[in-house]
Parts: sequence; structure tokens; C-alpha cells
Amino acid sequence: MTVTYSSKVANATFFGFHRLLLKWRGSIYKLLYREFIVFAVLYTAISLVYRLFLTGAQKTYFEKLSIYCDRYAEQIPVTFVLGFYVTLVVNRWWNQFVNLPWPDRLMFLISSSVHGSDQHGRLLRRTLMRYVNLTSLLIFRSVSTAVYKRFPTMDHVVEAGFMTADERKLFDHHKSPHLKYWVPFIWFGNLATKARDEGRIRDSVDLQSLMTEMNRYRSWCSLLFGYDWVGIPLVYTQVVTLAVYTFFVACLIGRQFLDPTKGYAGHDLDLYIPVFTLLQFFFYAGWLKVAEQLINPFGEDDDDFETNWCIDRNLQVSLLAVDEMHMSLPKMKKDIYWD
Amino acid sequence: MTVTYSSKVANATFFGFHRLLLKWRGSIYKLLYREFIVFAVLYTAISLVYRLFLTGAQKTYFEKLSIYCDRYAEQIPVTFVLGFYVTLVVNRWWNQFVNLPWPDRLMFLISSSVHGSDQHGRLLRRTLMRYVNLTSLLIFRSVSTAVYKRFPTMDHVVEAGFMTADERKLFDHHKSPHLKYWVPFIWFGNLATKARDEGRIRDSVDLQSLMTEMNRYRSWCSLLFGYDWVGIPLVYTQVVTLAVYTFFVACLIGRQFLDPTKGYAGHDLDLYIPVFTLLQFFFYAGWLKVAEQLINPFGEDDDDFETNWCIDRNLQVSLLAVDEMHMSLPKMKKDIYWD
Amino acid sequence: MTVTYSSKVANATFFGFHRLLLKWRGSIYKLLYREFIVFAVLYTAISLVYRLFLTGAQKTYFEKLSIYCDRYAEQIPVTFVLGFYVTLVVNRWWNQFVNLPWPDRLMFLISSSVHGSDQHGRLLRRTLMRYVNLTSLLIFRSVSTAVYKRFPTMDHVVEAGFMTADERKLFDHHKSPHLKYWVPFIWFGNLATKARDEGRIRDSVDLQSLMTEMNRYRSWCSLLFGYDWVGIPLVYTQVVTLAVYTFFVACLIGRQFLDPTKGYAGHDLDLYIPVFTLLQFFFYAGWLKVAEQLINPFGEDDDDFETNWCIDRNLQVSLLAVDEMHMSLPKMKKDIYWD
Amino acid sequence: MTVTYSSKVANATFFGFHRLLLKWRGSIYKLLYREFIVFAVLYTAISLVYRLFLTGAQKTYFEKLSIYCDRYAEQIPVTFVLGFYVTLVVNRWWNQFVNLPWPDRLMFLISSSVHGSDQHGRLLRRTLMRYVNLTSLLIFRSVSTAVYKRFPTMDHVVEAGFMTADERKLFDHHKSPHLKYWVPFIWFGNLATKARDEGRIRDSVDLQSLMTEMNRYRSWCSLLFGYDWVGIPLVYTQVVTLAVYTFFVACLIGRQFLDPTKGYAGHDLDLYIPVFTLLQFFFYAGWLKVAEQLINPFGEDDDDFETNWCIDRNLQVSLLAVDEMHMSLPKMKKDIYWD
Amino acid sequence: MTVTYSSKVANATFFGFHRLLLKWRGSIYKLLYREFIVFAVLYTAISLVYRLFLTGAQKTYFEKLSIYCDRYAEQIPVTFVLGFYVTLVVNRWWNQFVNLPWPDRLMFLISSSVHGSDQHGRLLRRTLMRYVNLTSLLIFRSVSTAVYKRFPTMDHVVEAGFMTADERKLFDHHKSPHLKYWVPFIWFGNLATKARDEGRIRDSVDLQSLMTEMNRYRSWCSLLFGYDWVGIPLVYTQVVTLAVYTFFVACLIGRQFLDPTKGYAGHDLDLYIPVFTLLQFFFYAGWLKVAEQLINPFGEDDDDFETNWCIDRNLQVSLLAVDEMHMSLPKMKKDIYWD
Repeated sequence: MTVTYSSKVANATFFGFHRLLLKWRGSIYKLLYREFIVFAVLYTAISLVYRLFLTGAQKTYFEKLSIYCDRYAEQIPVTFVLGFYVTLVVNRWWNQFVNLPWPDRLMFLISSSVHGSDQHGRLLRRTLMRYVNLTSLLIFRSVSTAVYKRFPTMDHVVEAGFMTADERKLFDHHKSPHLKYWVPFIWFGNLATKARDEGRIRDSVDLQSLMTEMNRYRSWCSLLFGYDWVGIPLVYTQVVTLAVYTFFVACLIGRQFLDPTKGYAGHDLDLYIPVFTLLQFFFYAGWLKVAEQLINPFGEDDDDFETNWCIDRNLQVSLLAVDEMHMSLPKMKKDIYWD
Repeated sequence: MTVTYSSKVANATFFGFHRLLLKWRGSIYKLLYREFIVFAVLYTAISLVYRLFLTGAQKTYFEKLSIYCDRYAEQIPVTFVLGFYVTLVVNRWWNQFVNLPWPDRLMFLISSSVHGSDQHGRLLRRTLMRYVNLTSLLIFRSVSTAVYKRFPTMDHVVEAGFMTADERKLFDHHKSPHLKYWVPFIWFGNLATKARDEGRIRDSVDLQSLMTEMNRYRSWCSLLFGYDWVGIPLVYTQVVTLAVYTFFVACLIGRQFLDPTKGYAGHDLDLYIPVFTLLQFFFYAGWLKVAEQLINPFGEDDDDFETNWCIDRNLQVSLLAVDEMHMSLPKMKKDIYWD
Repeated sequence: MTVTYSSKVANATFFGFHRLLLKWRGSIYKLLYREFIVFAVLYTAISLVYRLFLTGAQKTYFEKLSIYCDRYAEQIPVTFVLGFYVTLVVNRWWNQFVNLPWPDRLMFLISSSVHGSDQHGRLLRRTLMRYVNLTSLLIFRSVSTAVYKRFPTMDHVVEAGFMTADERKLFDHHKSPHLKYWVPFIWFGNLATKARDEGRIRDSVDLQSLMTEMNRYRSWCSLLFGYDWVGIPLVYTQVVTLAVYTFFVACLIGRQFLDPTKGYAGHDLDLYIPVFTLLQFFFYAGWLKVAEQLINPFGEDDDDFETNWCIDRNLQVSLLAVDEMHMSLPKMKKDIYWD
Repeated sequence: MTVTYSSKVANATFFGFHRLLLKWRGSIYKLLYREFIVFAVLYTAISLVYRLFLTGAQKTYFEKLSIYCDRYAEQIPVTFVLGFYVTLVVNRWWNQFVNLPWPDRLMFLISSSVHGSDQHGRLLRRTLMRYVNLTSLLIFRSVSTAVYKRFPTMDHVVEAGFMTADERKLFDHHKSPHLKYWVPFIWFGNLATKARDEGRIRDSVDLQSLMTEMNRYRSWCSLLFGYDWVGIPLVYTQVVTLAVYTFFVACLIGRQFLDPTKGYAGHDLDLYIPVFTLLQFFFYAGWLKVAEQLINPFGEDDDDFETNWCIDRNLQVSLLAVDEMHMSLPKMKKDIYWD
Repeated sequence: MTVTYSSKVANATFFGFHRLLLKWRGSIYKLLYREFIVFAVLYTAISLVYRLFLTGAQKTYFEKLSIYCDRYAEQIPVTFVLGFYVTLVVNRWWNQFVNLPWPDRLMFLISSSVHGSDQHGRLLRRTLMRYVNLTSLLIFRSVSTAVYKRFPTMDHVVEAGFMTADERKLFDHHKSPHLKYWVPFIWFGNLATKARDEGRIRDSVDLQSLMTEMNRYRSWCSLLFGYDWVGIPLVYTQVVTLAVYTFFVACLIGRQFLDPTKGYAGHDLDLYIPVFTLLQFFFYAGWLKVAEQLINPFGEDDDDFETNWCIDRNLQVSLLAVDEMHMSLPKMKKDIYWD
């Protein structure tokens, strides 16, 4: 479930963001504590070996190695690479959110353009609305692991009421080696045309208005599919990951506290705990985690989109809007500002 | 209220921006003075302890610690992280402003497409317009703390004249576990369709024009809701906040003036007041404050959007446009450039 | 007036941009010479004090201060902060240009969709067109200081022929505590609807085409207003300005030529004139001036939009198009490629 | 074929991205191993020459050269140049993906707006659909090397069933010195107009809906063509390539391990294998490879778009949708949530 | 003419981009060789003066100057300033390409919506199409130096067949102090309306579809004009140019090889040819050349848009489409996948 904290930062206050540092759900601590422990254990192990087990010449060699690692660790352009990469990932993530298919625009048009309060009218509107929801459900099954777990087979889709048995039969009857999420979308067009022939939709203007909206809905669906299908090129992700991991490996050795008595530059002090290196671990690994979380927002991370909730909400709300609420209107009364 | 200063910078003049440095409302000083005091007090405290209470060996240890902190403070990539983060926040903030729902496009269409100057016609237009305003009000209640304070319950909405008692009853009657801000939006569609059936709206072209516009209005509303619901991932905000806070903690120790007589490199001078560190505090903390202010622009900061004002303006102006101004026209006369 | 130089850089030639360095209007020199003089004078004054008036111990203290300032001047992230800030300002500036309201699309539709070459037809088209121009004029008055100077009161608007006396009376008659730039926009809708009732506009398709276009026009207007109303948050501008100014204050002291005989590192040479510091002044202050010029493009800078010219052009051209050119057509003849 | 890995990163887990480091297809290793071997061999060769063949004075000269190279290697702004360049390339690449022409919107409209289940109706719909597919095929032939290999001549297009022999004759009959991919697009318009004359398309609203959609389809096609025709300016690519190559040439010499006994600063240690330089090679060369892969996404790289697959899918699916599925509808039944 | 190299980089191969380094047309070498020669000559001259003519004290002074220049050269933020500036220029350049007016959408609609294969019908369609082409030609004349050279006066426009003599007379007859490129655009509207009155265009839906498309075409034209009229502010270009030029002047002195025997840090080696400085020249000057080439893409650079070719292509193709191809259709036959 998305972690919403905007109400906590509505106003800029005294050290406004510090409250955010104390959250656990969706936080940097929850995401990173395991990696952090591994890093800390390795650092301590190396430190202990250096302090306790190495002899004179080995110590000197290790010290030279440490200085060498430290020097090159600083040359790895982690900040820059991460900055560009995370910007790319965040943009893609937000575009995916903006293109989530919501049926609200369609239910508005169907409720007002497909006439008839009798059973056939109700059936028409409900069926059209179901096709809309079915189209997106089929896409979500391809895209989201959470939805796929909930609807592993088409049987589950039928059971959940998104499809009738007849529809399923016809769906299976159309043979194609390709994904068939567009089938209910074509049904929608056919059914709407039929409704117009029957006079349930008044004219071409109303019909085309529906069709255009449905095309838009499908474009959202296929864009989501596109984002899933064509990700950020693997090479890019590998370059960034390699840069960050290398940096930390270099730090494991390069940021050890060397014997202050040997007088290496910048090694006058032995703090035992490398506070700033650990903090750097938090910054860089945390920044990379931002990317890891957002690169596929349809998983089950704390910050991923609640696709299953969306599916339920959309079905419930859209059936309500096109059926129960069709032509339901409060009595018009003068408002309090009349004259 | 938004702080408008564009008229002060209409022309680029001699040291053009210096005037901006002297404003208080919405300024960096107003936002930061408390944090600044805390920072200055802590710095002074550490400075006094170092100068007055530490003894020889402790002093030396502190000096080494200070040099160590200073060296790593410079390695924290505050500038870079802040640059990318603030750019992201500013873009989101502006997109939210651009998607504020304004009823002007709809009132234009309703005023000219929904005919009849009689009471029923007036009632129709006013009611349609009220539904428009109600839709956005319900969204603003979810999104803005200021609006929520003003309309804590639906009773307040009814009292303020955005909803009639009948409407409220019907609204409550539709059962849904989900947010119901779209209910008046469906009413709008139903009422417009009814108006067409009665001949108040002439044909499908006029009707669909209204419907399209209303759909656009609702999309603005739901986008605002989306921005509130799915914020910048908490991890990202935490990474940035941690980086800035750590930097300043490191500065508290690392930027102390060490005894010049000890001959540490770069410590030849004891100025008592660390001018540049304080200025850096202003830059970085100020930059972070930009993010804090903009991350939720619907609060009550000096620079937040004046949502309550918008709500009032929209209702007043839109009722005026569709009622009093309906078909009101000045007498056509030849303009002064005629022939 | 905008400074257009694109024709001078049509081709990439030998040191192609050097010609641009010699322009005065809209140039960095014109914008910066005053600040430059102030900076140079201050630098010289400090230099003279150091060289002529300070005694031994004072000199040493000043030298330490200078080295201290120089070191921290380099830590101020001017480049980075400016890069992000100017990118933001330039994007806003261009978006404002792209959203300038041009009546060309509307005059095209009015000329061809509002029929009748008789006096009433002409009056209709001219009046519709005037309302279009009036809407944008009212916005420009709020947004642009240059336009406000030209039309300080509504009387000036009437005098200039954008409004008739009758229109003004009706305009004043509508009471609203809010800006009323949308009033002529509603008139436009009412008048167009009336024209359709009279058969001057043939059907709803033509009418809605006009209405959609007018709505787009108004959206441009209100977006301009939005850019003026909600500027870049003051804090951001202050952070950037503070960074640049502080940098230069630090340079005044830190970039002094110290006595070469004292053997400070990097101070072997006394050039008297700090060429590179002065050039840096040009880069950074120039970059900030880019922002100052563009942050409000409706002022009277060399590079600001020529709003008054736009207003005149739009009225002249649009009246010409809808009146004199209405249904005026050259005789159709075969072109030279016929068969 | 695109390398899809999003399902592997659905959830942010313990060292989430490490699994990606072990993939071969589309990976940095597969793309870079040849360059890496060349680099390693050259480095070793130079190292051997320095260690085994150079005499005293030569050694010293080489050492000075190495230090000189190392110093300047660090001044080459590889990171920055690559960051901006790759961002540009990635944006173009994604825009090309988003503008791939999919016939789904058109098949939806054709299936529902072009009436008649008889043979003539079927022929009409299939032919319209074929023209749509033909338009994009002609563009893909110009743009994609893979498609060009599959359809080297128009004969292959006819053979594959995208064009009939008659159509080819007429196609060749239109003489033009320019590309003729727009010819089937004009045919589409003519045929749709004819269908309307015959009453197969009901009215202008339905027709214009089709036409608008077809125009959108063609715009996608021509945008793809534009991206192919007007690439990133050669100079930019050359600048980036030169920067990266120069950097590595400088590293070949500058990153050699010099004799530790000579006491050069930073040369206390002889590791034989320059781990960090090799890793830097991976970062920078890998980052450049991202650009190389994406700059023309219509080739045959692992990560390129599967254009041939698209062509087949589009033809198969769209014919299915407009023919077999025309007016095919499952029997409407009450869904399980009815009442 | 645009330099197209995308087919050479279709696949990422072994040192994939190295082939691009060997091109001449549109290359960095062709663009920079003159500047490069100047730079090399100046560098050599200064080098010779230093080595041969300066005496002891002068030499020492020069050496100090050189070290001073070198130190400050590194402080000039060339990379950063160029990165932001070139990104801005490249975005503008691409937007201009995307907004080039292509008549394909209009010729599609005119061919299918303006009926009649008789001479009057042909004349109508050809004239409408000519007005479309004329509108863009008039804009190109203002924007592109190459087009202006080809059509220096309106006589040339008439001669080239874009305008008839009658049209020219009427064009001149409309008096306006402003640019008149919109005149044929208004004619288009008038002629289309007339065609509808005559029944050549069937109804308002078809007509408005044409009008909307023409309005879009005109918006492209005026956007091109806008890009030409309001360029990147002169100050910005000057700041960038100054930064680059200053950097190179500083390099001329600061990157001289100083006498190694004097033992200046980093001056142990005299290579005579400053390889890395020359390469830096290529990077930075090349990057600036990218901007110079793209800042006005309507010139006659190797990489500029081929506007004259576009004009010819558009006229030829669009007349072909609306005249010869009007209602021309291949015989419909069953495709090979039928059943």
C-alpha cells in the first residue's frame, strides 16, 4: 500500500521533515536494515582482522591497500550516475501512476448516454461497464504480480464476476498467438453499436463520444503494458548497481581506521565506528532503493500501487454509477444564494 | 496565501533581486529563523566547551575529531541530492497548480448552451453549476487541511450552500466503501441529459461538449487527489533529509575554529563566528525548506495555494455567469475602427 | 522588445558566436555594467587599504582572512544552484511565451462560420472579435506593467476602442469582489448563441467549434495570469540570490593579491587586476541576470515580450480578417502545375 | 528482442538488484566483453613493456608521462558529458517506443463503424485494415534494418499479403521523387469516403472519427520516420565518444602501477591488476553502450524493439478484430452482483 | 542537409561508435578545424616566445603567470554551464523539428472530404492545397535564410507557382503593418465555407474537421515563427560563449609546458604538444558547436533542416494526393488470409 505522508507535511514547520525520519513503514530503515547489517558485519570483520591478526608487513600492506581503495572510491561517480538514473526511474513511475486506467470518465458517459431504466437498459449499461473493467483487469494480470496472484487463471476472473461463462467461452474461441486483453474492448464497441441500432444510444455524436473515451481507456491500459514490457535497458540498471556496489566494497577496505601512530595523512584518529561511511551507505544505498522500489510499481512493496484495491473500487463504483444512479437525481431546489 | 513578487522583478535593474532579500512574508528568514537559532546555539555551546572546559589531551582529541568531521562533511553530496530532489518537488508543485479545477470553461458552456430565462432554466443552470463546484469541494476537503478545517463535516457543506438537504440525503443513500466525490459528477450527467430531453439543451453536439468539459474538470480533481495520495516515496524524502541533517551535525563539530597556535592546516585564524558555515546553513536548509513548503501546497504555509479563496471565488463567479449574465448582452454598436 | 539574433547564427561559422559578444542591446554588458563597476570599485578600495594603510600585524590578519575567504568561496555551490534555478526560470519563461493568447485561430473560425456580409453580420463578427481581444487585454493589464501603464483605468480601454460605453456600463454593473476579465468571455458565448438562433451560425457543430476555441483562448489567458500570480517560491529566489551575493562578497576579500614575498601558496604573483575573478563575476552575475530578466517577461526589459505591440497587432489583424476579408476570395485559376 | 526484467524487481528485496548482475542476455558483459578484452590486453602490454623492457631513463620518462596522463585523465568531464547525453538518448528512445503505431484504436472503430456482415462488408473492413498495416509497414521498412532485411523489395510486401498485385500496380503508377508511404493512407481516406457514400458508414460523425484516428496513426508513423531521419547531431555523438575514448587511452598509460620504490605520491602499492580502472571502464563504457543500444532502437540488439513481431501481431490481431469479431457478442447475462 | 547516421548505429557492436569518428560531413572536424588551427598556432607562438625569447626574470614571471592561469582555468565551470545550455538548445531544436508543418493530414482530409472529380472539384482541392502550402512558405521565408535566398520577393513566390497573379493582387490589397502570412489561411477558411455552400463539402462535421486541421497547421507555422522571433536570451548565449572562450585563453597560457628543471609541481615533463589540452579544446569547443549548429536549424549548416526540399516535397505530394489520387482506388480483392 502506498505510504501517504502528505498531511504530515502540509505546513513547513520547525525542522519540518524530522517527523518523517521516525516512520517505519516504507522507510529507509525498513528497506535497508538487512543490507546495513551485512555491511556493518563485513566492516567489523575486516577491522578485527586488521587490528588483531595481521602482522607488521601484512599490516603495512593492508594500510597501503586501504589508502589506495579510499582514493579510488572517491573517483567513482556514484552521485552523478544515481542522480540521472533515479530521475529517470521516478519519471517513469509517476507516468505509470498517471496512466492507471480509471473508469470514471466512461461511467459518467454510459450513465447519461445509454438510455432505458428497464432491465435491458440496466443490463446494457452493466455489461458495457463490465467490459471496461475486464479490459483493465486483463492488463493488470500481465503487469502486476499482486493481481496475478489473486487471479492466477481465467477461472478466477470468471468466479470474481468480471466475466460470465458465456463470455469466457467466446474469449477462448478467438484463436490468436498474441495477448487477448483487447477482446472485451472490441466487444464494448460492438455492444455500443448495437445499443445505438436499438436506439438506446441516441445518435452518432453520443456513440462516438463513448468510443473515443473507450479508446483512451485502452491506451492507458496498453501504455501500462508498454512500461512493463520495455523497461529501462538492463545495461543502465547494471551500470548503476555496479557503481554503487563497487563503491561500498571499496569503502569496506578504504574507510578502515588505520593505526594513528603510523602517521598516514587523514588517519590521526581511531573512532572504531566509521559514522560518516555508514551514513554514506544510507544515502547511496537509500537512493538506489528508491529506484528499486519504483522501477516496478506493481509489486508488493510498501510504496507500490494498490492495484487489487483499484480493481475492486472500480468495479463497485462503476456498477453503482451506471445502474443504481442512472437518472437518479435529487429534487431541484433553489440554492441559498438564489437572488 | 501565495506570496506574489513578480511585479517587483518586472524589470532587471541594478542588483535587481536585492529587494527580494528584504521581504519577510514567505521569506527564508521567516521559515528558517528557529532552526538557525538552534544551530547557532549548539555551535556556540560546543565552541565554549572546547575553549573553556576541555583540557590538553581532550582538546587534541576534539581537534582531530573536528578535522575528521570537516573532511567528511565535504564528501556528503548535499548539493547534488538537493538539486535533483527540489527539481522533482517543484515540478510536482507546479503541476498541481496547473491542475487546480476552475469552473470557468464549464460556466461558459452552461451559460450559452442551457437555454431558458424562466425559473426552471435558471434553476437548471444554477444546479448544474453547483454540482460542478460541489465535486471540487469534496476533493479539496480530502486534499487540503485548510479546507478540511472549514468544512469538517458534510453538514458544513450543506450549510455553506454547496448542497441542499435533499441532495445530502441522496448522497448518503448511495452506499460505497470508497470516496464518493464523484457522486455529484454523475448527477451532473443525469441532469444535463434530462435537460436535453426537455429541449433545454438543443442537441447531442451541445450536450457532448458539456460532458467532455465536465470530464476534464473531474480529471483535474482526481489528479489533485492522486498527487495527495501518491506522494514522493518516503525513502527519497528521508534520504535527502538525512543528508542535509547529517551535513549540519558534521559542521557543528567540523567547522569549529581550532586553536591557531597548534598549526592545523586551514586553521590559522579564529573568527569566533563561522560566517560561511552559517551562510551554508542558509543555502542548504533554505533549499530544503523550498521542498518542505511545496511538497504539500494545500497546507497553510505563506506560499500555499489559497484553496478556500478559490472555492468562494468559483461559486460566486460561476453562479453570476450562468444566472445573472445568461443571455445578458450589451447593445451591439459599431466600434471606433468601423470603416 | 525582444532581442532577435537568430539570423546572425543561422550558420555555424568560424568562431560563430563571437559576433554575439559585440552586441549591446540586451547584452550582458548593458545589464551588468553597473554591478560590475560597484564590484570593481569595492575590490580596488579593499586592495588599496591592504596595500597602503594596513600595518604589519593587520596585514597578516588580513592575509589570513583572505585565505580563509578564498577557501570557503570555493565551497559555495553557485554553479549548481544557478544551473537548476535558471533551468526552472527558462522553462517557465518559454511556457509563458507559448501561452500568449493569439486570436488567429478564432478569427479564422469567425470569418468562415459567422455568415452575412450585411451590416448586422459585420457587426456580429467585429463584436465577437472585440470580445476576444478585450478578454486578453484585461488579463494583460493585470500581468504586464507596460500594458498597465498604457491602460491605467477602464476609461483608457474604452477610449482605445476595445470596449464601447454600453459595454463598460454593463461590465461595471456585474458586482463581484473578484477579477472580472471573464465577463467579455461570457458575452462572447451569449452573442455566439444568439447568432446561432438567428441562423448566422449554421448549426451546433459550427457553434461548438467556436466555443471550444474560445475556451482554449481563455485558458491561455488564465494560465498567463497563473504564472503571474503564483511565481517561483520566494525562498528559492532568495537562496539563489544569497548564494551568488555571498560568493562575490567572499571573493572581494578572498581574491585579493597578497604580498608575494610572504610566500602564501598560490600567491606568487601580483597582477593587480584579478582578471579571472572579474570574468567569474561576469559568468555568475550574468547567469543570475538571465533569471532576473526572464522571471517576469512582461516588464520593460530589452528581452521582455512586446505585449503592447501584440495587443495592437491582434486587434488590427483580427478585425481585418473577420470584416474586410470575410468571404473575400481571389478568383480561382488553374495553377501552373495543372496537368 | 526486448529484455524484460521488471517481474524480477517487482519487490524491493535484500540487495534487490544483485540478481540483475548475473544476467547475460542484454547485459553489460555481453555488450562489453570484447572491448574489455582489448582494453585489458593493451594495459597488460604496456605494463609488461614498462616492467621488462624499459631501461632506467626510459622508465623515468614513462613514469612522468604516466603521472601526467593520470592528472589530465581526471580532468576529462566524462561523467557529466555522458550524463547529459545519455539522458537525451534515453528520452528519444522512449518517445520512439511511445509512438510505435498500434492499429488497436483503428480496428476498434472500423469493427464497430463499418457495417455489413456480408462479403462486401467484410472486404471493406479487411481492406481498410490492410491499408493501415501497410502504411506502417512501409515506414518500418525505411526505419528498421530488421524489417528491411525481411522485406527488401515491394515484391516481398505483396507476397506477405500486405498488398495485392492490383494495389502494387497503382502504387507504382503514382510517380513521385519522394517516399510514398502515404499512398495507402490516402487510399484509406478514399475507401472510407466511398463506404460512407454506400451507407456502410452511417454519417459524417462516424467517418470523421475514423479519419481523425487514421491521421493520428499516420502521425505516429511519420514521427518514427522523423526520429530516424533527424538524429542527434553527429557532432554531439562525436564529442561524447571522443571524451570517453580519450579517457581510456589516458588511463592505459596513467593508471599503470609505477615502481613503489621510486616514491611517487599515490604509487606505494603495486597490485598488478588495476581493479578500479577496470571497474571504471565498465561504468563509463557501459554507460556509453546504453546510448549505442538506444540511439537506434530499430536494429537487432538484444534490447531493440521487435518490429517484425509487431508487424505480424498487428496484422493478425487487426484482421481478427474487424472480420471474425465484427458484431460478435457474447450473450448478455446478469452479472453476479446484479441487485 | 541533415546528416543521417542512424543506420550505421542500428546495432551496438564492437567499439560501435568508432565508425562515426571517421565521418567528415557534419563532423566535429569539419566544424572545428579552423578554430583548432588558430588555437594551435597561438599556443605554438606563445610556446616559442617563452622558450626562445624570454630572459631569466621574464621567464620566471611567465611561469608564475602560467601557473596562475592554470589554477583559475580549472575554476571556470565550463562543463556545467555547457551541459545546461546545450540541453536547452537541443530541446528547442527538436521541438522545432516536431513542429515543422507537414500538409499530409490536410491532404488526407481534403482528398476525401471535398467531392467532385470534375474540373471545378479539382480546382477547389488544388487551390485549398495551394493555400496550405503558401501559408507555410510565407513563414519559411521569414524563418529560414535558405528559403529567403530562394524566394527573395513575392514575385518569386508567384513564379514558383505557389500563388497566382490574382492572389498576389488581393494579398497586396490587404493593408496591414504586420506580417501577412495568415492571409492565405483566411482564404482557406473562406473557400472551404464556399465549398460547403456549394455542397462540395457535405456537412458541418466534415467542414469543421478541415478547419480544425488547418488551425493546427497554422499553429505549427506560428510556433516556428515564435522560435525564430524569441530566441534564447542573448545574455545566456553570451555567458556561455564568454565562459568557453575565457577558458581557452586561460589554457593558452596556463597549459604551456614549463621548464622541467625549475621543479614546478606538475611540470616534470615537456611533451611539446599539449595532447590533453587539444583534446579538451575538441570537447568543449565541439560541445559549443553543437549549440551553434542547432540554435538556428533553418540555416545552411550540414545539420540544418532541408527546408527548401520540404517545400518542394510538400507541394508535389499534396497536389498529387488531392488531384490525381482523389477517389482513385485499387480494385478491392480478397487478401491472402481470407478465411
